[in-house]
Amino acid sequence: MKNTLLAPDIRDLISANKTQDILEFCESTHPAMVAEALSGLTPKEIWEILSRVKPDIRALIFSEFDVDIQIEMANTLNRRAFASLITDMPPDDRVDLLKSIPEDQREALLPAIAQAEREDIRRLSSYAEGTAGAVMTSDYAILSEKSTAKEAIDQLRREAPDKETIYYAYVVDEGRKLIGLISLKDLILSPPSARIGDIMNREVISVRTTDDQEEAALKIQKYDLLALPVINGNDNLVGIITYDDAIDIFSEEHTEDLEKLMAIRGAHEARAYMRTSAWKHFKNRSVWVLLLAFLGLVSGYIVHNYSDLLLQVALLATFMPMLADTGGNTGSQSAALVIRALAVNEITPKDFFLVLFKEMKVAILLGLMLAVFVYARVMLFTHTSGSPAGYSVVTLGIAISAALCFQVFTATLIGATLPMIAAKLNKDPAVVASPFLTTTVDITGLLIFFSTAKYVLGF
Amino acid sequence: MKNTLLAPDIRDLISANKTQDILEFCESTHPAMVAEALSGLTPKEIWEILSRVKPDIRALIFSEFDVDIQIEMANTLNRRAFASLITDMPPDDRVDLLKSIPEDQREALLPAIAQAEREDIRRLSSYAEGTAGAVMTSDYAILSEKSTAKEAIDQLRREAPDKETIYYAYVVDEGRKLIGLISLKDLILSPPSARIGDIMNREVISVRTTDDQEEAALKIQKYDLLALPVINGNDNLVGIITYDDAIDIFSEEHTEDLEKLMAIRGAHEARAYMRTSAWKHFKNRSVWVLLLAFLGLVSGYIVHNYSDLLLQVALLATFMPMLADTGGNTGSQSAALVIRALAVNEITPKDFFLVLFKEMKVAILLGLMLAVFVYARVMLFTHTSGSPAGYSVVTLGIAISAALCFQVFTATLIGATLPMIAAKLNKDPAVVASPFLTTTVDITGLLIFFSTAKYVLGF
Repeated sequence: MKNTLLAPDIRDLISANKTQDILEFCESTHPAMVAEALSGLTPKEIWEILSRVKPDIRALIFSEFDVDIQIEMANTLNRRAFASLITDMPPDDRVDLLKSIPEDQREALLPAIAQAEREDIRRLSSYAEGTAGAVMTSDYAILSEKSTAKEAIDQLRREAPDKETIYYAYVVDEGRKLIGLISLKDLILSPPSARIGDIMNREVISVRTTDDQEEAALKIQKYDLLALPVINGNDNLVGIITYDDAIDIFSEEHTEDLEKLMAIRGAHEARAYMRTSAWKHFKNRSVWVLLLAFLGLVSGYIVHNYSDLLLQVALLATFMPMLADTGGNTGSQSAALVIRALAVNEITPKDFFLVLFKEMKVAILLGLMLAVFVYARVMLFTHTSGSPAGYSVVTLGIAISAALCFQVFTATLIGATLPMIAAKLNKDPAVVASPFLTTTVDITGLLIFFSTAKYVLGF
Repeated sequence: MKNTLLAPDIRDLISANKTQDILEFCESTHPAMVAEALSGLTPKEIWEILSRVKPDIRALIFSEFDVDIQIEMANTLNRRAFASLITDMPPDDRVDLLKSIPEDQREALLPAIAQAEREDIRRLSSYAEGTAGAVMTSDYAILSEKSTAKEAIDQLRREAPDKETIYYAYVVDEGRKLIGLISLKDLILSPPSARIGDIMNREVISVRTTDDQEEAALKIQKYDLLALPVINGNDNLVGIITYDDAIDIFSEEHTEDLEKLMAIRGAHEARAYMRTSAWKHFKNRSVWVLLLAFLGLVSGYIVHNYSDLLLQVALLATFMPMLADTGGNTGSQSAALVIRALAVNEITPKDFFLVLFKEMKVAILLGLMLAVFVYARVMLFTHTSGSPAGYSVVTLGIAISAALCFQVFTATLIGATLPMIAAKLNKDPAVVASPFLTTTVDITGLLIFFSTAKYVLGF
């Protein structure tokens, strides 16, 4: 969302040459607010302002922009200026930026960055996208178990400007193995002479670098953590994930779940709708649309095959679209509920039969309700459109009701089962997209419809 | 997710009469972990253990359970014991519990609760569900602008056990008007003699009690806040919303978006799938399923009305289900993208024409792709099923392609437009559920299909 209120003010200030006012605003306001106020300007104009802001604040404001705007700004800089900006950025944000620029540009840039930062960048970039390692930051506070509470507070005070958070500090042994956690609150409440080793919490909740980022976010949510330590295969502390990362991970995962559920491929970034070009949107959406159109032709063949039946019992054609839609609706509902329950860790693949049993009960209730509705509909109005010769209205009503009931039952169970199976196979349950489900239960529904009708009508 | 690993251990400890071990575990472990370990037991068994735990820790563990389990436990208590438990609970959690018990029981309970807590409960309960006022808590730290940094730290140290967070403290004037914010980090970094009024941040980001809870959560996300102050109509500070509330609000809103998108009514709680009975699930899902089944009959009437055309040009029936499905798929995709972009505040109703223009471009690309696919399909395979007398295969191909292209274009625009209109009218964009959309574009699609076919074929 571009800020249309503040941006013109900035333009006014620029044209009135009130540089000092702009700089004061930039340095005294929350970086996210500054970024929003500047977002109405071009990347070049933004950089003209930022270049005069204090380097540490400049890096924070710069980090608030979308990566593609960051790149546009960076492209106007010489290598040295860009390297110095990179050095000042928070470690996790600069890795995100560096991952988005071409490899040759990145390689050209690295030698201009100080060795400590360069190694940090190499290390943070080495983890696979979507893992805890790829979202963690390396700006965390470390304490020795031998320090006293007073020494620890003094140390945190000195380090505060460079750390993502000083509210949690981690205690490691000589081999950097994570052995404890202490909060600033605990430090303040403890006697100044207390030893960290005696007052720290030894049961530290952590994740491994290779764990899924969503698992890390779920732990932060479950235990109300400000930050979660990330350890490597040797139990060494290598990073932390903060609560604000968790919020962003959830936001991204929600976007992903929703887009996958609608059979949309692509990067599934949050806040990328407007930035994504129509052509890219087309590419992301078209693959499944086309595959499903192919699959949809199968329904057509079934209708085609049963055209004799449809000709003789025209009433069946009237109920056909409703039957197909209803299967899609009930199947999608149960798929969405199961996918969500899996996503928030409420259920696991082990609960397969519990879920199946619950959905069967719901399916029977839905099926019976719809059967009664359709039977009533056939009985009440069919005399007007004329019952086909040879079949009583009652028989037709029974045939259509039975087919609908069976269709709803099958569709609901397919909707609940497919995400559970995907989860069991360690696939994302949301791969079972609602459009795929709708098209599938269209096919099963038409088969059920026509074979039930044939059977009941003795065709 | 019930913990099936730890719960048996607890049972073992109970049967071995190792009460002391259980109590030690309860008092030294994170309350969320204790609640998970105990979740395999019956509410009565859980309470038997909790009743021996220290009151303040007991209240924290109790607060971690789902409200319905809390109520089961509470029902075994006498009024006095329940009132004392309520008094120890975090203010926001106890209001959630009290809102879920019958009114007469609540009214009977209140006199047994101390006046300060009773007034706090009355105040927090008074805000409408879904507003910032309804999710805030009243356990926040307040400082005077006249204090020094040292005095402020001493005060926070004294108050720490009773406050939700001491990392942010709020500064109010004599009339309780919110005038500043200071973090514990700033306090520690400031000279001990500095006056709060001189070092506090005067530009405090806040929300009003009547603002939507999602707006509060979005502010916490945008500005990476640990807590967000909530003010009333007189700018008085009345509560705070913490980052962990924001995470829960997003989780709840996402469940709600997903369920609404699938036309499921009800409470839209996160983690409520298993707890909700099959009957309740049926009630939540059946209303829209039935309404849409009614609407689906309209499609049936259209098919029925054009049965003469279908009889003469049997090929049309083969493509009919695919055309209906494809409209539903493309419409749902664009609805989901627009709903999500609105939810994360990336777009607002003001962007209506920008969104419409983008979706038109995508729709044209999708429509052309599908038209080419269908035309090729008709041209390649139709000779085998035999072209109907009087119409060339080319004419049929053009008719079906044109109808499909037009259907995809309409469906995509309907899918993008309806949520934008809902947002414009200050309704939740997710009310435009995918099943409703699918059923609607089925109807428009069939009308487009048959009228295009009639027109091109000159029927």
